[in-house]
Amino acid sequence: MHRGAAEMDGWWRAVAGVFSSDRERSRAGGAALGFDLGRSYGDVEEMLREERLRPDGIDAVAIMTPNDTHYRFAVAALDAGLDVVGDKPVTHDFQEACDLVARTHRGGRIFAVAYGYSAYPMTRYARQLVRDGVLGTVRLVQVEYIQGGMATRVEEGPQNNRFRWVLDPRRSGLALVMSAIGCHAQHLASFTAGLAVARVAADVGALVPGRKLVDYVSALLEFDGGARGTFTVTQAAAGGENDIRLRIYGDKGVLDWWHREASYLRLALQGEPARIIGRGDAFLPPEIIALGRTPRGHPEGLREAFANIYAEVAQDRMARKLGEPVPDLLYPRIEEGAHTMAFIEACVASHASRGWVAVAAVATKPAQ
Amino acid sequence: MHRGAAEMDGWWRAVAGVFSSDRERSRAGGAALGFDLGRSYGDVEEMLREERLRPDGIDAVAIMTPNDTHYRFAVAALDAGLDVVGDKPVTHDFQEACDLVARTHRGGRIFAVAYGYSAYPMTRYARQLVRDGVLGTVRLVQVEYIQGGMATRVEEGPQNNRFRWVLDPRRSGLALVMSAIGCHAQHLASFTAGLAVARVAADVGALVPGRKLVDYVSALLEFDGGARGTFTVTQAAAGGENDIRLRIYGDKGVLDWWHREASYLRLALQGEPARIIGRGDAFLPPEIIALGRTPRGHPEGLREAFANIYAEVAQDRMARKLGEPVPDLLYPRIEEGAHTMAFIEACVASHASRGWVAVAAVATKPAQ
Amino acid sequence: MHRGAAEMDGWWRAVAGVFSSDRERSRAGGAALGFDLGRSYGDVEEMLREERLRPDGIDAVAIMTPNDTHYRFAVAALDAGLDVVGDKPVTHDFQEACDLVARTHRGGRIFAVAYGYSAYPMTRYARQLVRDGVLGTVRLVQVEYIQGGMATRVEEGPQNNRFRWVLDPRRSGLALVMSAIGCHAQHLASFTAGLAVARVAADVGALVPGRKLVDYVSALLEFDGGARGTFTVTQAAAGGENDIRLRIYGDKGVLDWWHREASYLRLALQGEPARIIGRGDAFLPPEIIALGRTPRGHPEGLREAFANIYAEVAQDRMARKLGEPVPDLLYPRIEEGAHTMAFIEACVASHASRGWVAVAAVATKPAQ
Amino acid sequence: MHRGAAEMDGWWRAVAGVFSSDRERSRAGGAALGFDLGRSYGDVEEMLREERLRPDGIDAVAIMTPNDTHYRFAVAALDAGLDVVGDKPVTHDFQEACDLVARTHRGGRIFAVAYGYSAYPMTRYARQLVRDGVLGTVRLVQVEYIQGGMATRVEEGPQNNRFRWVLDPRRSGLALVMSAIGCHAQHLASFTAGLAVARVAADVGALVPGRKLVDYVSALLEFDGGARGTFTVTQAAAGGENDIRLRIYGDKGVLDWWHREASYLRLALQGEPARIIGRGDAFLPPEIIALGRTPRGHPEGLREAFANIYAEVAQDRMARKLGEPVPDLLYPRIEEGAHTMAFIEACVASHASRGWVAVAAVATKPAQ
Repeated sequence: MHRGAAEMDGWWRAVAGVFSSDRERSRAGGAALGFDLGRSYGDVEEMLREERLRPDGIDAVAIMTPNDTHYRFAVAALDAGLDVVGDKPVTHDFQEACDLVARTHRGGRIFAVAYGYSAYPMTRYARQLVRDGVLGTVRLVQVEYIQGGMATRVEEGPQNNRFRWVLDPRRSGLALVMSAIGCHAQHLASFTAGLAVARVAADVGALVPGRKLVDYVSALLEFDGGARGTFTVTQAAAGGENDIRLRIYGDKGVLDWWHREASYLRLALQGEPARIIGRGDAFLPPEIIALGRTPRGHPEGLREAFANIYAEVAQDRMARKLGEPVPDLLYPRIEEGAHTMAFIEACVASHASRGWVAVAAVATKPAQ
Repeated sequence: MHRGAAEMDGWWRAVAGVFSSDRERSRAGGAALGFDLGRSYGDVEEMLREERLRPDGIDAVAIMTPNDTHYRFAVAALDAGLDVVGDKPVTHDFQEACDLVARTHRGGRIFAVAYGYSAYPMTRYARQLVRDGVLGTVRLVQVEYIQGGMATRVEEGPQNNRFRWVLDPRRSGLALVMSAIGCHAQHLASFTAGLAVARVAADVGALVPGRKLVDYVSALLEFDGGARGTFTVTQAAAGGENDIRLRIYGDKGVLDWWHREASYLRLALQGEPARIIGRGDAFLPPEIIALGRTPRGHPEGLREAFANIYAEVAQDRMARKLGEPVPDLLYPRIEEGAHTMAFIEACVASHASRGWVAVAAVATKPAQ
Repeated sequence: MHRGAAEMDGWWRAVAGVFSSDRERSRAGGAALGFDLGRSYGDVEEMLREERLRPDGIDAVAIMTPNDTHYRFAVAALDAGLDVVGDKPVTHDFQEACDLVARTHRGGRIFAVAYGYSAYPMTRYARQLVRDGVLGTVRLVQVEYIQGGMATRVEEGPQNNRFRWVLDPRRSGLALVMSAIGCHAQHLASFTAGLAVARVAADVGALVPGRKLVDYVSALLEFDGGARGTFTVTQAAAGGENDIRLRIYGDKGVLDWWHREASYLRLALQGEPARIIGRGDAFLPPEIIALGRTPRGHPEGLREAFANIYAEVAQDRMARKLGEPVPDLLYPRIEEGAHTMAFIEACVASHASRGWVAVAAVATKPAQ
Repeated sequence: MHRGAAEMDGWWRAVAGVFSSDRERSRAGGAALGFDLGRSYGDVEEMLREERLRPDGIDAVAIMTPNDTHYRFAVAALDAGLDVVGDKPVTHDFQEACDLVARTHRGGRIFAVAYGYSAYPMTRYARQLVRDGVLGTVRLVQVEYIQGGMATRVEEGPQNNRFRWVLDPRRSGLALVMSAIGCHAQHLASFTAGLAVARVAADVGALVPGRKLVDYVSALLEFDGGARGTFTVTQAAAGGENDIRLRIYGDKGVLDWWHREASYLRLALQGEPARIIGRGDAFLPPEIIALGRTPRGHPEGLREAFANIYAEVAQDRMARKLGEPVPDLLYPRIEEGAHTMAFIEACVASHASRGWVAVAAVATKPAQ
């Protein structure tokens, strides 16, 4: 998915990689995927060392490894002077995330986070409508992400080796469901509404009896500035599909976006008919139209959303290299990844204290 | 609405009434609505007294008055030996509601509550599917009711005299939005899932800045037996319509009902295609089909749902009168109204304490 | 249904009737429905004769009898100087319908046709938008009505006595599916688009092999003025529900109405976001809002649509009686019923000739 | 689009091409797209000649050129012993198409047609359900394709040079709307229902007054075996998006697929709840699941559908090369393209004669 997305528009080529934590499997895996054998490395350190010596060495690293390795590999890439596209959750905890923020700033690097849902044309347009004041002042944000993949005790059955780490609570993060999908839900809400979460009261646990992993989090939110929010994520909803839904209510109206109809955005202003806005509609601003690749009325998917992130990272790199003013690019940054880590920690703490907990601020304000 | 509902199937006739808190306006109002002048009374006491003297006096009282009068009129009606159909909220607080429960039992009377959303054919069928174990054990219940009617400060503008009491916090109840629509949302969730709310952590306040009335409540729920829940109601959602939506997740699948498509129910069992069940579908049990009055594929509304409640109250009366076994009728009872009052009190208390609060139990278990 | 609709707003009271073609069953049937025994008549002639003698005799007749009796009873009612609300199809053929048009005009009477789908608030608003030029010039009208009730050979099974006549081709009309639902589809298209059908090429037959009844008609249409159309109706669509859908395309945009979501109308203007307009929306003109009886967001049904027709007939009567100018009322007239008969005849003729056939014009132009 | 689709799964690499009818622009165009300068040819003849001389010469040709060049280039490619993926319409008329069928058979070549809508996982599954008898005997097929791109007289305005040929009736085919989208609609219907069209009565013309191009075709269909059909396509529907919709009715139920929700298929069997089947649902057969590339609940698009065609052509080639039995692959063949040409000719002839016209049979039966 990431490779296809990065290469879709011709901005990037995937030329080197580490494909397993096992040296031999990594080398073989790269070759199987069509990578040059000589650039299918045994481990990350080797890759960074060898690539630095090449005249055509890599410019950036995309980190799509188990969650407990994100921080380590990101530090290594940044220290090697490379730009990073990192998967979520960006780290194990908020402290590590702050460290990545600091390293990114110190090194003058780019650190993008693969929050793909915020890079759909219609979620980008939602953000723009909020920014432009079309909704008025935001009062309430509702976000949910409902899946059914862990509705049964998959952690006890025979498991796909490749994803076994997901079900290991020491490796997948502070709360499994947050690492897996909660990150996306919180980021989508904050990104589109342009608001960081300030305080939470959360119910964190498992819908499946006896489960040790966290498969359910529901939270009451207070955003910076006082807007309220609701947040519900679970992977234990039997019959659930992959439903991430966002609603933003301002004093003038409401925006409604549902992943199942990702190319459409519903805007209902008080006292006016609801409007259904479609990807590619002629009246959209050119920068929103440009986020799509097929004529209106043709479905597109998450692959294209990731491609938008990769394209923007490339444009940012190019502008910096040419010394040109960096354009206003909206790809998600490490600061936003760090805010998510603070949010997750606050949810866990709220559940422990059975009350409201403040979300730690990210030193460098996220570019929202 | 209530009159048309009560009379729809020929079970009831509205023959007497009090139509205003002003004696003269009440008499004139009854006549204007086609009531007999002699049975358009100046106040409730007069009505109860005079009707008792008539050989064809009234059998029951339907109370659709301002919220702060519900308890008083209900007591009067019960004391007069009449059955009651009462609007929600049934009283001002939980203590009054418990008193109504006790009086109803002592008098051997019927006390139905006008929770119309639970009397749609498809919400009744949802309850039946849950009862029959089609979803397995219930794990999560999500309910919300979103309206836009108070998105602006209507309380400050010129107000329709007739509903002015709604905006008076002393008259409309402990929390306006709960009195207006939150009652319905909580009851629908408890009725269909067959579960009382045990504990809540709630955010209770106003989305509209400076408003003194409560226009927003969102809560994390724990039901008896441990199932989780989420609850969000507001009348301050600009652009909102009248969206009450219910989802019940069990370990086998999920039920989804949305008022906007009230004649349909979505059932998605894990590993099977989602099913859309329509009012009047041939495979439905006869008691569900009987709750509709037109062939399948024809929209029906809340008027018909209320008519189902009135029809069941009549059938209950008739069975009791004939000394026949009382059939298994699902119209909402005063115990369910009392549970709602306990729920509202717990939400208010939770907001004050910023933590989780237990919901008081209703002495006589609601007939769920 | 009709009785509830007529009485809903207090304009009418059903006080007399004929309830069966059998004299004794008719008398008993009226009583069972709560009619006065003395006004439950043995046949139509008796009813008209006796009622004329009463000081409180009936003002109008609603004809909801088997199709082959419509013409006869309508003639009798008109000749008795009464107004008529007639079911569709208004007669057996176009010639009879023209005779009713002439008799109605001669007698200065009201003759309304129970085309309920055209009396929903949202189909009325569709007509208004077309009239107001919001769509520009109408280019194409698509209408379909798909049901599944005759997907199997119900005509061979044991039949409900009461509706046996429906399956008798001599009694149900020129083409069963047209009598049953095709009437509604054609009228809805003509009413909302404001266009009579000028020419048709039709496929008329049975989807169920071996069936003698017509259960399927699909036609290419040309309207007066040149707009094109498509028309498809069937009762033999296994899995079908009750789906009547209308789309009107003008040079500026398209209107889309679907009975399943009868309270909503979709308007998509070229180059603008699609708008979803809901019954009761605040921006609607007052005469459209007045066609609903509950607040926006509450489903209503066909019962309320019929009630709109009955209310308008009453208003028309009252205006005529008072000698006031007759308001602009949109209830369907006998001329529209006659146009439908011409359309049905043209479809049958087109199928026979395997080519295009002109639709006969109604002498007095329908009040569209 | 086609290049990305062909390369998506690694089966193909686009290595050579002709990119303009102008020799110099073609060479420059290839380079701009990242093609080897030496393999960016001045014309098709040159490409075929030069590539034949290379040890790594091309294996197949994808023809995405103006419609009036399809036949000529296809003949050249087949004569050069290459396999072909051709765009629709495959030729200018039925006779040319039959010639391509014959040449393909004589040369033992593969000739696939880019009917992408039939290669969505859910349209493939629709076909399979029909084949498996889930619907019973097919009685009625309804297909429509509604667009708004030609709702105004774009043919008179300044035109994008690249697509100018589309608006030239001599170059775009017998009927513009059929060449552009009608091909897809007819093929989708025939492919999924497994039925060729036998007879048509068609209305062929322009919705836009004064237009010389055909922008509207609506037809009554009779399929082989007697099933009925309706067919409506237009590009002149102001407010239209890109709505291709298919419904297949059998004696047991109905299948409904709509491009806007391409990942879902609705199956309603008589007497059972409607089922919504989603791409990737666990119960689907593995060959249907394999047509998707992301987990269920993630939108995919036409790009992926085209990729399915390219992947199957590659698998067919490989099987033939290895002398293995050719697997049962469903990519559309030249015979299906030829049937479409016969259908278009019949529609045009029907309009001229104002009656029903038989559709010419394709000598070698399409592999349906």
